[in-house]
Amino acid sequence: MNMNRICTLLKIQYPIIQGGMVWCSGWRLASAVSNSGGLGIVGAGSMHPHVFEEHLIKCKAATSNPFGVNLPLMYPQIDEMMGIILKHQVPVVITSAGSPSKYTSLFKQHGIKVLHVVSNLRFALKSQDAGVDGIIAEGFEAGGHNGAEETTTLVLLQLLLGKLSVPLVAAGGIGSGRAMLAAMALGAEGVQIGSLFAASEESSAHLAFKQRIVESSEGDTLLSLKPIGGVRLLRNPFFDKVRQLELSGGSPDQFRELLGKGRAKLGMFEGDLEEGELEIGQIAAHIQSVEPVSVIFERLLSDYHSSLNGLCSHSGK
Amino acid sequence: MNMNRICTLLKIQYPIIQGGMVWCSGWRLASAVSNSGGLGIVGAGSMHPHVFEEHLIKCKAATSNPFGVNLPLMYPQIDEMMGIILKHQVPVVITSAGSPSKYTSLFKQHGIKVLHVVSNLRFALKSQDAGVDGIIAEGFEAGGHNGAEETTTLVLLQLLLGKLSVPLVAAGGIGSGRAMLAAMALGAEGVQIGSLFAASEESSAHLAFKQRIVESSEGDTLLSLKPIGGVRLLRNPFFDKVRQLELSGGSPDQFRELLGKGRAKLGMFEGDLEEGELEIGQIAAHIQSVEPVSVIFERLLSDYHSSLNGLCSHSGK
Repeated sequence: MNMNRICTLLKIQYPIIQGGMVWCSGWRLASAVSNSGGLGIVGAGSMHPHVFEEHLIKCKAATSNPFGVNLPLMYPQIDEMMGIILKHQVPVVITSAGSPSKYTSLFKQHGIKVLHVVSNLRFALKSQDAGVDGIIAEGFEAGGHNGAEETTTLVLLQLLLGKLSVPLVAAGGIGSGRAMLAAMALGAEGVQIGSLFAASEESSAHLAFKQRIVESSEGDTLLSLKPIGGVRLLRNPFFDKVRQLELSGGSPDQFRELLGKGRAKLGMFEGDLEEGELEIGQIAAHIQSVEPVSVIFERLLSDYHSSLNGLCSHSGK
Repeated sequence: MNMNRICTLLKIQYPIIQGGMVWCSGWRLASAVSNSGGLGIVGAGSMHPHVFEEHLIKCKAATSNPFGVNLPLMYPQIDEMMGIILKHQVPVVITSAGSPSKYTSLFKQHGIKVLHVVSNLRFALKSQDAGVDGIIAEGFEAGGHNGAEETTTLVLLQLLLGKLSVPLVAAGGIGSGRAMLAAMALGAEGVQIGSLFAASEESSAHLAFKQRIVESSEGDTLLSLKPIGGVRLLRNPFFDKVRQLELSGGSPDQFRELLGKGRAKLGMFEGDLEEGELEIGQIAAHIQSVEPVSVIFERLLSDYHSSLNGLCSHSGK
């Protein structure tokens, strides 16, 4: 893998960015990814400001490589979070779930690189206009929040190709070195990987959730809760209730009431596989074991290189 | 593009199979694709047996290259269709929408190659056990019918990789040479392309439908009518009614009543963009003009080769 624009921009060895996932991506995961040569990300979305600051301090102590944070722009105490990010000189901020037009220039004034997560071309162009340094294009198969268009990673990359001057990172469904190669073939210069790292040893997710990911098979996730935003859920008894409400045409208020508060923490962090909300990407069906981040990196890279060699030797070069 | 197993099996120059789409793929489209070096397909799903036979006769007259037919295994007069296929010595049959266990051996006894379309690993393995010569793996982004799992092409290919001994063809979301290259990177040995050819000059679809495809943009299709099977529809007034019924939790009977009879013909063949059913893949948003098949092939191939060269030169080879 050559040093492309994403590697140069983020000062990383491999163009692999870890997704900033709620309840999974604390300092242990982020520092492990950065120590493996990718960009580790502390996921601020599920952290109170003081917890977030603690993770930043620990992450900096655990790696001398660059790392970043994921900041949903709908975060209630966003100004406090921004203060913490500036104080600790975090080199990269990945923004999502909101408009980057207000905050991008603030971060950039302080020398912070900004990438914004989008699920369609329209917001990719808006984000570029807002001055972001790169776009993360996230397809329908991803865990976490998705666009109403339901555009898959394969289609989304084709729609974005040639339309942007900033570098593009592919997200959603990346579970192997071959998928990384496919993303590069489609013009991306990097990948963001969530689910593989959610199930890693260093993920802060509960072991029961990680085991559930390993045991899951095809069709075990569906984009759910669409009337209140959309999130990809693993099947469990809570999912069944969501599904029933979907099939009976429930109102947004009914979905909010069913969801209640703290379900994501209950499922992913506390390991309640019955009543908790279990967010994960479609690629969960491909994950076979809970492994250290370093092992995941080794396989991704060797798979990428052997697939590339295969493709290029077939090309007659 | 080297002669891989799909090219050898189907005796074609390029591993590009045209999707057998209702109301779009008559003898003109099939023969144009075969004459361009791919595998043209007469789509039997929307044809009465005598119409189907006429298309086969005309297709054979218009090309000396191999071509095939797509036969949904739920087709009411399937035995009559099989008789016609055998009578005209069609070299390839692509089966879909049903179990291949009954018919595969019958076709193969007559020297016909059989590929079966699947949307999950479970049916891919079953189809291989039934003796098919290849598997077409079709993702969520495809037009036409889809699996309940909603697995995208990118994820589906990763789930199938290494699990099959027969060659694999990627379908759904393939709208460019780069996407072909991505499919090859993911281990496929060919692609099935539907939407691009549905909008081609030689497609038998109504010009108004082709223009609507060209004008469509991201988010203009959604997998719809799930309670009665699922099909990807372009937004129009009929779609809005479907959507309303979905959001209000309609029963399968209500969906059947709303759909009625002949809506796909009305929309795609007769060009009623208001009340007709318009089936197309997500990649429709990427299609910019109505072009001859030969032009589509030229661009696919040149894009594929230049992307491959780019990828391989970056690899330092």
